[in-house]
Amino acid sequence: MSRILYDLAGEDESLRFSPYCWRAKMALAHKNLAYDTQPWRFSDKDQIAFSGQGKVPVLVDGSTIVADSQLIADYLEEAYPHEPSLYGDAPGRSLTFFVKSWTERVLHRAIALIVLPDIHAKLAPRDRAYFRATREAAFKRTLEDIATHRHEAQIALATILQPLHATLEQQPFIAGDSPNYADHIIFGALAWGRLISSTPLFEANDPLARWMDAVLETYGLPAGLTA
Amino acid sequence: MSRILYDLAGEDESLRFSPYCWRAKMALAHKNLAYDTQPWRFSDKDQIAFSGQGKVPVLVDGSTIVADSQLIADYLEEAYPHEPSLYGDAPGRSLTFFVKSWTERVLHRAIALIVLPDIHAKLAPRDRAYFRATREAAFKRTLEDIATHRHEAQIALATILQPLHATLEQQPFIAGDSPNYADHIIFGALAWGRLISSTPLFEANDPLARWMDAVLETYGLPAGLTA
Repeated sequence: MSRILYDLAGEDESLRFSPYCWRAKMALAHKNLAYDTQPWRFSDKDQIAFSGQGKVPVLVDGSTIVADSQLIADYLEEAYPHEPSLYGDAPGRSLTFFVKSWTERVLHRAIALIVLPDIHAKLAPRDRAYFRATREAAFKRTLEDIATHRHEAQIALATILQPLHATLEQQPFIAGDSPNYADHIIFGALAWGRLISSTPLFEANDPLARWMDAVLETYGLPAGLTA
Repeated sequence: MSRILYDLAGEDESLRFSPYCWRAKMALAHKNLAYDTQPWRFSDKDQIAFSGQGKVPVLVDGSTIVADSQLIADYLEEAYPHEPSLYGDAPGRSLTFFVKSWTERVLHRAIALIVLPDIHAKLAPRDRAYFRATREAAFKRTLEDIATHRHEAQIALATILQPLHATLEQQPFIAGDSPNYADHIIFGALAWGRLISSTPLFEANDPLARWMDAVLETYGLPAGLTA
């Protein structure tokens, strides 16, 4: 297999929770492209030094190396034009950028305030100091303070999910009758939450849970979000 | 002229502030369709009884009567297929529904908590009791209580606008290189705020202000948001 995705892993190598890596995995599935994953930890900077930077996802596709989930999606869209489009036409591609902006500025932040302490506990021990330092600086709060306010964060998330609930009342996927990269972006966020949170982000019969299952089923992927 | 849009007005007949009516006006402009507006107040239910319901916008296009901004947009897209599309392809149309859901559940609510008391003051006196009763029921707060917390609401709005700012850092319009109905939806919300708020929602040189000007310029509409 000549296609490898470097994929963030926890202490348990099978725990693959990065929302950005999930975007890349879903985009590869959407393009009907087989791949192997290489589990990677935050402290394994040397393993991906060949990519010229220090974060995953990194895709190695034959002789092509692409880092950054958005650049990976754009690369796949360009390199595999005969497979289903990730974006649709130009307006759809631009609206996907609004979905991305909302997900990263609002949804990721809301989920992070629930799960950051859980992530810390599930990381390989050698990754934990880096994770604590970078996240506490980004959120300007200690992990312990975030853990104390978990209940408020879960209430806040329910409000933030309202536009998604309203959208899925109207149509089966964010992009309409079938998923595309806009779905992958939001799926990544919720897969992250589902895999890492010590308490469910929403009920098992929530429309968002059913939508996640439908996205996985579209691509023939296992419901357990396994690597 | 055989095309008339019933358009919500304040006590001053030239104050046309409804976000939903702005969507319809922008969609008509996008489709290069000339129209006249008929100023309408909340208490003029009899004037639009012919539409089978009691809210604006109502579009009368020759012998066709359409009420509800989304139904008006869908009607225009179907009836005028040779004019520029409001949505682009199927995924773009579905992503526009996410933009609509976010705008109505999040952005409208945030702006309402700033401007509801201003709207009340600018309505025709005969509209005020209806407006107070319906809005105080919807928000479960008095207009006076909302006015007291205006400053907090303005701070909250700045956070809520972040995904729009991030999007417009990347591309000139929400829908990419030129505006479409996704832009119209958000434009309607911000035009509502600009026209009715007693204090600016954001600075005159804010990227959102420049984007609003660019949307108006695209359609050759006056910067003053006049009827």
